[in-house]
Order: sequence, then structure tokens, then C-alpha cells
Amino acid sequence: MSEVCDLATDLIRRRSVTPEDAGCLPLIGDRLRRLGFHVKHLRYGEVDNLWATHGADNAPGQRPLLVFLGHTDVVPSGPEDAWQSPPFEPTVRDGRLYGRGAADMKGSVAAMVVALERFVAEHPDHAGRVGLLLTSDEEGPTNLDGVRRVAEHFRATGERIDWCVVGEPSAKQKLGDLIRVGRRGSLSATLTVRGVQGHVAYPEKALNPIHAFAPALTALATERWDNGNADFPPTSFQVSNLNAGTGANNVIPGSLTALINFRYSTASTAADLRQRTEAILAAHGLDYTLEWNLSGESFLTPPGGHLREVVVAVCRDLCGLEPEQSTGGGTSDGRFIAPLGAEVVELGPVNATIHKVDECVDVAELERLPDLYQAICERMLLA
Amino acid sequence: MSEVCDLATDLIRRRSVTPEDAGCLPLIGDRLRRLGFHVKHLRYGEVDNLWATHGADNAPGQRPLLVFLGHTDVVPSGPEDAWQSPPFEPTVRDGRLYGRGAADMKGSVAAMVVALERFVAEHPDHAGRVGLLLTSDEEGPTNLDGVRRVAEHFRATGERIDWCVVGEPSAKQKLGDLIRVGRRGSLSATLTVRGVQGHVAYPEKALNPIHAFAPALTALATERWDNGNADFPPTSFQVSNLNAGTGANNVIPGSLTALINFRYSTASTAADLRQRTEAILAAHGLDYTLEWNLSGESFLTPPGGHLREVVVAVCRDLCGLEPEQSTGGGTSDGRFIAPLGAEVVELGPVNATIHKVDECVDVAELERLPDLYQAICERMLLA
Repeated sequence: MSEVCDLATDLIRRRSVTPEDAGCLPLIGDRLRRLGFHVKHLRYGEVDNLWATHGADNAPGQRPLLVFLGHTDVVPSGPEDAWQSPPFEPTVRDGRLYGRGAADMKGSVAAMVVALERFVAEHPDHAGRVGLLLTSDEEGPTNLDGVRRVAEHFRATGERIDWCVVGEPSAKQKLGDLIRVGRRGSLSATLTVRGVQGHVAYPEKALNPIHAFAPALTALATERWDNGNADFPPTSFQVSNLNAGTGANNVIPGSLTALINFRYSTASTAADLRQRTEAILAAHGLDYTLEWNLSGESFLTPPGGHLREVVVAVCRDLCGLEPEQSTGGGTSDGRFIAPLGAEVVELGPVNATIHKVDECVDVAELERLPDLYQAICERMLLA
Repeated sequence: MSEVCDLATDLIRRRSVTPEDAGCLPLIGDRLRRLGFHVKHLRYGEVDNLWATHGADNAPGQRPLLVFLGHTDVVPSGPEDAWQSPPFEPTVRDGRLYGRGAADMKGSVAAMVVALERFVAEHPDHAGRVGLLLTSDEEGPTNLDGVRRVAEHFRATGERIDWCVVGEPSAKQKLGDLIRVGRRGSLSATLTVRGVQGHVAYPEKALNPIHAFAPALTALATERWDNGNADFPPTSFQVSNLNAGTGANNVIPGSLTALINFRYSTASTAADLRQRTEAILAAHGLDYTLEWNLSGESFLTPPGGHLREVVVAVCRDLCGLEPEQSTGGGTSDGRFIAPLGAEVVELGPVNATIHKVDECVDVAELERLPDLYQAICERMLLA
């Protein structure tokens, strides 16, 4: 087996279901320390995060800084007997490496480690710094103690990241056929509309919050929040949950609760969307409260960005493909790094099997992934 | 104690919580049989109903027929120790008779029995027929086996009722200050609007039923169904319950459920309201189903109706009050009798304490109630 397959296999064997790390991060930290990396474990609560840098005497704040970003935690396997081979016993069949995390994203993590080891071995005096940031809290429900907290630490300590390559599985059918150059933002709120409870036989003594909310709901649902832009579809608004009523059919309820969610482009900001939502509700004369929750700001590495150009060229040169440059899909930890001022691009293996039973990665593609990451290092950090 | 108080006391002592009758109906049936009434027990399921008539040789179908309508069942007492005196131990205090059912409506039932006994004793050869219809299923949740079933029986056997006096407690502050001359109808439905479930990040692959329903909801909530008329306020439409969503904020739900209710005047019919609701939903292009439930058609005894005029005159002459002629409040068993072609008027004691702890009726007013009912008999059935 190749070096990257060996390491991926070693990582998959460890049951690192969020927030467990099962020794993945110490294993990687020890390897990189031996090659002269400066390695720190940033522990928050139950979560371990690894921050390893090389170059410029490992002095914090030195630039330019190119960071590879990944996670060692995985989602649960589901029923193990539904798998063709046990999810935590990595197995190669028909040219594919099977196991939980093979594609999301222990394969990418292994490729990053191997690429960084080769790069610093071949170019010990590269310009700037190269770093690896790994968390064990990406797949969990809150992500409170992972890259979100590390980014706060960076902000507090003056660490500036210029470029960030995220190893999330981005490819559709072949390695290099799609890279992500941004992500939509996600903004949620719990909306409560208050009325006056009463008996349906005496509607003049009550105020039905369902009726009161209806015109505002229509306005929110039909509002054109923005037209999107070259990189993003228009911002989307959805009411995911709406509940009102006592269960009885002779009672007008006293209040209504709605959960709302924006997936928004860089043509809008969370602050704009909040303000416009409140304006629509206020214009309809509602007695309401809104509790907002910003899951992640949108971000975009614009066309012409240095990292984006380099990653596209690497895909073209090493994979022979013109990659689609997408901002689709959900969110990633890139959302915490982009606000630090970094260009963020996501490049990883095919994502067809992630989170499913029989998750796998193509062995031949996994073995080419370190070449891609190493080429990015060379084109960014060698004169 | 007076004859009416004795009988009311005897009835209250019986724990006739729906559908239990606890011997109330046989007691009354035996009394009336002794005076020449033709008495039938109409049993449906667990429910006993009493149908007693006098006059015209007790031949069914003979007219005119004046019926007094009441119920012997009561609502539960709630915690007995919250009462000043036990709810099923009738007690007179400060001129009031306390106990569950005193006002709703064992007092009225006792008054009807006493009035009918006196009337037939004094006028054995009165014109037409006079009847008493009592059920033990008025306060229950469904009322399936009470007056609803009796009305079907009447329809099937050709029994025709010309006039019906309901003994429900109608008065606000004094006996005779308010009579009911009709009731609004109640029409309900469960509405299901279907969409297509999906991830909020991919709204183009889903169809949000909350958004789809919003304009139709606005149209339904703002529709002017009718303008009411001299006797009724305009028809009222209310959504009492609205529920959609999986609980998760990243899922667009696949369907929405609403409970709707009309309280409608005689300016509309249930069929009209159903048809117009369906038309509004269809005009908005919704994929929906509606399950209708008609609790009770509206009814009205119009001004100039013979019974209505007589009851007003009786209140004026015997109580010295000009009664308010109302169609307010919920529904009553009158809704099953009115569709048989009868004029229906409701006259009973003050309703301030009904369904509450310490339910009571004023003894002096209770003792006058047989006079009112007897006067109605005399004015309707004596030449």
C-alpha cells in the first residue's frame, strides 16, 4: 500500500465519532513534529484541535500563511451489519478503500499530511509558512468547540491566514471535476407572533395570530431578497416549521411560532436580511419577537483570487479536467476561516458516498491527492 | 319546599354525568304516565332518551305539537372539595339552590315537568299535543345518541314538531331578560396541504406547503363570507390550529395541516361555505384535501313567529321584562329540532354559574319558571 493509503487506513481504524478523536490528532502531530513543524493542541471542552505550522522559524503572525483545513471526526456508522465490511475495519475492494470517513475526510487528511511532509522535506526553506489545522468537532450538531473557537483564538493572537485549502470531499464523479470557491450563509430565527386567545364563537374578543401573520408570511415568502450574482443563486427564504393551536377546534390560539431560515448569497448580508425581515413584520403591524441565530456568514473567494487560480490550474494540469467552480451545497468549516481575511478553496475526493453505509474512496484518486496538495504548496510558497 | 324545588333536588342528587342518567328519566316518565302521558324510552347505545306526549289520544303525527326539550345529564363536577357544599348534595343557601345541574338544566327540567302536569290536569282536553323530550347525552363530546338520533327517528316515523321550547339557561341576570331565537351554525374541517419535502439548502428541489398556503390563508382570513342579517352577526371563519414541520430547521416540510371552523349565520349555508372554501383553495393551485364535519346547521325562528311572539309576551307579562331576543352563544340541541320544521325558542334560568363550581339557581326564580312554561302551553294550545 502507498503511504497515503497506509495513513488513511490507520485513521479509519480509529473510531473517532464526534467529538472523539481516538488518537488521530496525536498520531499526526507526532509525525509533523518530527519534520520540524511547530505543533499545538488547542483543547476546548471535550474537543481537541491540532494546529501545526512550518516555515519562517515557526513564528506566529509570519506571512504569507497557507493553511490546509480538515477534520478527523466522523459521523456514526449506522447499523454496522448494513455495511459490506465493518465500517471501522478499512478494506480495499475493487480498487476502493471502504470505511467510515474514507471520503469525509480521513482520506483528505492523510493526503494533506503526506503532501506537507514531502513539501517541507523537498523545500525546507520555502517562503512564508504552511500550516495544518485539524479539528475533531466538525460533524457534530453545534461545532462550538472546533474551528469556530480556533478562529477566535487566531483573532485574539493576531494570527492571519492568507489562503486556506479545505479538504472536504468536493468532487462529483472524478477527482478535480469540482472545487468550491465559496459557500452560502445560513441565518435562522425563531419567530413568535402574539395574538389574544379566545373562543371561536366570540372572535371579536380574540385576535387570531394565524390570521394576523398570513399577509406577512405571504410577503416574506414572495420577497426577492436579492438576485444572486455570478457565483451564487439568489438568497432563499424558507419557513421550516409553523405551529399554532391548542389542539381544540373551538379555541383561537394566543400565539404562533415559526422557524425560519435564510440560505444567502454574498449579494446580501445577515444584517440586511435581519433588518428587512423585521421591517416586513413591523409593516404588517404584528406583535412579535425574533430570536436570531447566525450559523455561518456567506463567503466567496472571487474570480482572480490567487489561490483560486492556482487550484484551478492544478486540477487542469494534474487531473486533465477543467473544474467546475461552485458555491453550492451546505456549509463547511471554511465559513470560520474566510472572515479572518483568507481566500478559501475546497478540494477533495468524490462525495457520492459520504455519510452513507459503504462509504469509500477510489484508491487511485486518493493516491493522486497528495500530488495536488503538494503542487498547491509549491505554486503558492515557492518563488 | 315547593314542588319544583323538590323535583329539582331529587334530580340533582342523582349523579347523571354524561351519558349516565342515574334514574332521572324513569322517575319523570313514571310521573307523566300517571297523568295520561304516552311515554317511550328511546335507547341508542349507552344513552337513554325520554319521549312523552299528551293530547289527541296520543296518536303520533297529530298536530299542532308543542315540545319542551331538555337534558338530564350534567358535566363533571371537577374537584368536589372545591365546592362549598358537595355538588351532588343539593343545598339551599341564601335563597339559592346549589348543586351540579341546578342551572344546566335540572332546574328547567323540573319546571317543565311541573308545568306539564299542571297544564294537563287543568286542561285535559287541550288542542293538539304537548310533549316532553329529554336526553341524557347533551353535554358529552359527540352527542351522537341523543337528540340527533331522536330527530332521525322523528323524521323516519313522520312525527312533526311545530314549536319547541328549549330549557337551556338563557337569562343573563334575571329570569326572562333574554331568550334565544336561533343559533349560529358550526362547520369544521381538517385541511391538509401537500408540498414536496426537501433540504432547505436546495429549495428548487422542494415545494414548501407553508409558503404555498400563505396567499390562500390570507384570502380565507379576509373573505367577507356574508354580512349577517338582522338576527345574526356576519359569519366568522377561524383557523384554530396550524401545524407544519419536522422540528428540524434544515428541512422543508412535505405537508401542512390546519383545523378550520365556521360559526355561520342564516345568511349562509354550510354547503355554500364548503363550496366557497374549496374554490379559494383551488384558485391558489394548491394540492389539498378537506375533511368536513358539520356540527350543527344554523337556525332562526324569525320575528313574527307564533312561538317567539308568545314567549316574548310571557316574559313581558309574568316577569315584567322586555326580553332580549338573541342568537348568540354556542350551540344547543335546538339545532337538531329546527331542521324538522319547528319554531325553536330557548327560555331558562340565569346561566352565570353553569359548568362552574358552586353552580346554583335562584330559588324564587326557579319557582316562577313552571308558571312561564305553563303560560306558554296555555297560549299555544288553548283556543
